[in-house]
Amino acid sequence: MVKVGVVGATGYAGAELVRLLARHPQVTLEVLTSQSYAGKAMWEVFPHFYGVVENKLEELNTAELVARCDVIFTALPHGHAMPIAQEVTRQGKKLIDLGADFRLKDVATYQQWYKTEHTATALLDGAVYGLPELHREKIKHSAIVANPGCYPTCTILGLAPLLTNQLIDPATIIVDAKSGVSGAGRGLSLKTHFTETTNNFQAYGVATHRHTPEMEQELTALADTTITINFTPHLTPMIRGILSTIYAQMTRQMSSAELTEIYRDFYQGETFVRVLPAGMYPATKNVAGSNYCDLSVTVDPRTGRVIVLSAIDNLIKGAAGQAVQNLNVLLGCPENTGLDFVGIYP
Amino acid sequence: MVKVGVVGATGYAGAELVRLLARHPQVTLEVLTSQSYAGKAMWEVFPHFYGVVENKLEELNTAELVARCDVIFTALPHGHAMPIAQEVTRQGKKLIDLGADFRLKDVATYQQWYKTEHTATALLDGAVYGLPELHREKIKHSAIVANPGCYPTCTILGLAPLLTNQLIDPATIIVDAKSGVSGAGRGLSLKTHFTETTNNFQAYGVATHRHTPEMEQELTALADTTITINFTPHLTPMIRGILSTIYAQMTRQMSSAELTEIYRDFYQGETFVRVLPAGMYPATKNVAGSNYCDLSVTVDPRTGRVIVLSAIDNLIKGAAGQAVQNLNVLLGCPENTGLDFVGIYP
Amino acid sequence: MVKVGVVGATGYAGAELVRLLARHPQVTLEVLTSQSYAGKAMWEVFPHFYGVVENKLEELNTAELVARCDVIFTALPHGHAMPIAQEVTRQGKKLIDLGADFRLKDVATYQQWYKTEHTATALLDGAVYGLPELHREKIKHSAIVANPGCYPTCTILGLAPLLTNQLIDPATIIVDAKSGVSGAGRGLSLKTHFTETTNNFQAYGVATHRHTPEMEQELTALADTTITINFTPHLTPMIRGILSTIYAQMTRQMSSAELTEIYRDFYQGETFVRVLPAGMYPATKNVAGSNYCDLSVTVDPRTGRVIVLSAIDNLIKGAAGQAVQNLNVLLGCPENTGLDFVGIYP
Amino acid sequence: MVKVGVVGATGYAGAELVRLLARHPQVTLEVLTSQSYAGKAMWEVFPHFYGVVENKLEELNTAELVARCDVIFTALPHGHAMPIAQEVTRQGKKLIDLGADFRLKDVATYQQWYKTEHTATALLDGAVYGLPELHREKIKHSAIVANPGCYPTCTILGLAPLLTNQLIDPATIIVDAKSGVSGAGRGLSLKTHFTETTNNFQAYGVATHRHTPEMEQELTALADTTITINFTPHLTPMIRGILSTIYAQMTRQMSSAELTEIYRDFYQGETFVRVLPAGMYPATKNVAGSNYCDLSVTVDPRTGRVIVLSAIDNLIKGAAGQAVQNLNVLLGCPENTGLDFVGIYP
Repeated sequence: MVKVGVVGATGYAGAELVRLLARHPQVTLEVLTSQSYAGKAMWEVFPHFYGVVENKLEELNTAELVARCDVIFTALPHGHAMPIAQEVTRQGKKLIDLGADFRLKDVATYQQWYKTEHTATALLDGAVYGLPELHREKIKHSAIVANPGCYPTCTILGLAPLLTNQLIDPATIIVDAKSGVSGAGRGLSLKTHFTETTNNFQAYGVATHRHTPEMEQELTALADTTITINFTPHLTPMIRGILSTIYAQMTRQMSSAELTEIYRDFYQGETFVRVLPAGMYPATKNVAGSNYCDLSVTVDPRTGRVIVLSAIDNLIKGAAGQAVQNLNVLLGCPENTGLDFVGIYP
Repeated sequence: MVKVGVVGATGYAGAELVRLLARHPQVTLEVLTSQSYAGKAMWEVFPHFYGVVENKLEELNTAELVARCDVIFTALPHGHAMPIAQEVTRQGKKLIDLGADFRLKDVATYQQWYKTEHTATALLDGAVYGLPELHREKIKHSAIVANPGCYPTCTILGLAPLLTNQLIDPATIIVDAKSGVSGAGRGLSLKTHFTETTNNFQAYGVATHRHTPEMEQELTALADTTITINFTPHLTPMIRGILSTIYAQMTRQMSSAELTEIYRDFYQGETFVRVLPAGMYPATKNVAGSNYCDLSVTVDPRTGRVIVLSAIDNLIKGAAGQAVQNLNVLLGCPENTGLDFVGIYP
Repeated sequence: MVKVGVVGATGYAGAELVRLLARHPQVTLEVLTSQSYAGKAMWEVFPHFYGVVENKLEELNTAELVARCDVIFTALPHGHAMPIAQEVTRQGKKLIDLGADFRLKDVATYQQWYKTEHTATALLDGAVYGLPELHREKIKHSAIVANPGCYPTCTILGLAPLLTNQLIDPATIIVDAKSGVSGAGRGLSLKTHFTETTNNFQAYGVATHRHTPEMEQELTALADTTITINFTPHLTPMIRGILSTIYAQMTRQMSSAELTEIYRDFYQGETFVRVLPAGMYPATKNVAGSNYCDLSVTVDPRTGRVIVLSAIDNLIKGAAGQAVQNLNVLLGCPENTGLDFVGIYP
Repeated sequence: MVKVGVVGATGYAGAELVRLLARHPQVTLEVLTSQSYAGKAMWEVFPHFYGVVENKLEELNTAELVARCDVIFTALPHGHAMPIAQEVTRQGKKLIDLGADFRLKDVATYQQWYKTEHTATALLDGAVYGLPELHREKIKHSAIVANPGCYPTCTILGLAPLLTNQLIDPATIIVDAKSGVSGAGRGLSLKTHFTETTNNFQAYGVATHRHTPEMEQELTALADTTITINFTPHLTPMIRGILSTIYAQMTRQMSSAELTEIYRDFYQGETFVRVLPAGMYPATKNVAGSNYCDLSVTVDPRTGRVIVLSAIDNLIKGAAGQAVQNLNVLLGCPENTGLDFVGIYP
């Protein structure tokens, strides 16, 4: 059994990791840490774990944590995974970071968007952007896996076949994304207060969201040309799920059916990407509670644009599920180990 | 007092009209018709009217209806307002049609998108597209007011200042719109079944929605050049509200503040358009239960695109409220008569 | 015009009061105070007021507030209305308190349930429990109106005809109440965090809720015998509305129809109580956005119990609307002045 | 591997069964039938199964169905399981019926509440009421398992320790239950239309719901005295979950802590009943997506009544999960086989 630690176990991504890891057949939950709730049992903070997860929440003691675990998951605000990564490297363990600290290869970009100094730049080269569908081989051999953000997961998977095959003008990409409120975390704010959010729909971070450079980095790599995008996230009155509606100008005339075929080829053999048949569109409810990313691709012949729809559960494929998928890649076990559940519906 | 009839009073738009007209100081509710519920009292179908609206629902008898009323509102599926419009013309009364029959000036376009023959083409010239902010003068003198669709209201008001001032490339307009479920009406379907729709977000009618030509007609008129757009509507798990996120490439460099000033000038004196100050974005909840359209305009200097956000209550400014606003224009009374209520919050 | 002040204008009850008073034909909004947001405009805190309410929020200065206003509304946590009440009395003005400070006639009961000393006991005798349907005459002549709690309004109106007519055993009353989340206010807590509350239903304050003695006081007065009840409030994933399901053992055999008749007689002439016809049950949506209390009464012949259902909008009939109703009683104007709107549906 | 059939696979309970059985390690999904969708793939009707469940939906052919399967699950409207039960008996297979046909031992009671003739009365004696916590031994040896209704599951588990230990007056039981909308099924109706149900709370079937005699039968057996109850179900604007709030007069003075101890003893060793520690109350969200029933018990010393709170996921412990639990009892495998998942949160 692999001993794992979850640092930041009482945020939503952390708790979802605990839920998945608690049923992973090759894993022991060795350490759960929480800044706010250390000393309590996990089930006191999340009562759905009552009788299921017996772990106590601990204060973070980095050296000891790393010593006790084989693999460490960090689900922390940006900046906080850096010292843990250094200790992990020192002790020769593995880190899967659900935060932003090791996603951006360019330090200046990180510091510009996150307004924080990067204190572990030496580790960036050894870190891999943990989107298994694109970087599987590299993940196997990396000590630090930078688990992608929820919006980037959804968007990059949606655009990869188009960019790889040079089917769109890379200067015309617009990503209009809609997220459930769990993406905003368990921290209290008026934006996530029930009465303010229910029956409400709004944009936020217009042209300034921090996931923008992360998408641009990966899309640029896929296209082999610098890409700048428009990205607008929206807050949707639902709990889980992201739907990205992606627009781009096509470089040649193709039908929706032809494009769908290209997507099927591209994702051939992928367990967690479902290219939907013609006439079906992704809906967040169809992927909720699962590790799937559902995709559809539609051409508008009137304008020559393609519209890609991409849906994930932000807490699973957009966070904890993808982290477990990365763990499986690291461990060399089947990628769906511990992830072989069916989404919950309705 | 002006005698009014509402044809199709038991759909959501019809019932909302009844709610507004019941408190309009210059109006008597003379006739309410309903195909499904004729013979019942209005409050038997909508219990919130118990003790408030005493009208019985009647079968539609076109000639008699028109004879009894000064102004007729039709809230019907497309194709059904045409014979009523003819009778209204014959008897010299006024029609405010909440459906699509008189919105498109081009008969071929109507028939192509609605797959129905237009049987009242002679009346099209005399009909006006009833967006008071753009066509107020013409509305005053028209016998037939084609009340705009909900998505077009939101979108056209969002784009008018940009197109009128030639600030954007008209070939680059993308409209990504999100609507509450009331827009889908009271008719039963799996798409609007509570358990299927709650905690779900999805696109529909991708590149094929019937409001597309309506927007294109009005945007073309504003820009004085043919405009083709991408329009993607989405179903949002909330009751009321539309938010449109509109993208276009700017033709010259301007700041968000400069554009906001242009919007304020454009809508100077308009009661129902609120151009929000910098740093505030529209949210559907802020307009719910009111006749307002809230607008913000943001420039992304990285891409040279402008992002317009436009929010309305689809049943009020997007349907019944705008119809009452049109009635007020017809009657020559202050435009906010019977509409001077504050939106409900939270 | 009557000059009014709202103390605590940025809680939900306060903001709802502002919404109603802003359209009351006999009222000027003279002062709005807010502890958290003093110095800001009301619309900066509640953007639905943008372009509608221009008032700035002020710090509370009790003496000056009372001097500037004819009637003061307080929407404050318990304990905070007492000093304002004393100043109001000193200056001979009127107070309508939406909090708990003047609802309980018995000081010991207040101190036991609210764990706070009562510092204005001398004013209790002159205060009236402001449920107009029961205490209209006394309200007219009182300087201090203690606006009832939301649960008590719903419950007392539901039980009054039964107790007045001695139709139930007063020892058997069980009140099972369900409230929308707006009842918990705008203050942030995990209980009202969107993701925790959506798709969740739970009880709270089982056998310990502070509205219990308030109900018992009024029910005791109606029955003329000491009444102790079971009261269980529940948090419902909706914004507005309370439904109380009330059980009691009948003292004699009667049919639902006979009881309904008794209810109709009891509430004869009341503008804001609607006794529903047989076969219709109250639903919170039917009263949302209105000042109505909807009632139904059903006998279960199998057990000899009566089941009363009572629904209100907690922010209107359960708070701000009832406060305006009380204002109208004080002013001697028709009770529905400024309250003559139709609830919003759907 | 055990071959199973699901008759009525495209209702919510049926689809949930398919979801659970698809991951049950000892089961093969042999037949799925659907009246409405025969000929389609299961994933065409429930797109979350795309790539997961490959079965085609078939017309019901009773003899063939029974021949092909070892265990048949029926999730059908009442009356429709009877002929299947007869065929199952004839062929010596096993039936787990999620409907009402074999729950009531008394034919007259069945016919009175369901207004349908019972055509398989000879099989009633051999059928067992499939609540494993109470009837485990009998289930092992029964050919027909009558899977309990959702409300009865929740209520009977909540009351069993009190009645078995004669701690309450059986004439005073009141059950006030609140259900999510999935309990109303996938069939379309105005009651389950998104816009009508969202932000709404209402009672239904007051004193007439068909689960009443089912509860009374089982409670009567537990108490060994005839029990008549008041049962009021309510529709809650959420997808999954039931919370029952149960009231009864105690026959002797006990504290909440003492009662909790009695509950813990009673459910000692039960995998799927969680008696919560003092200070924790059940919430539907804590059991959603799991097979748990969460219980709390509170004494109100002021009235001498006990308030039991009981929460389940209506589609799992209230339907499909309990059916799988019954299957496990029949098969003699651990009761949590295929049910060992953690509920989903938030």
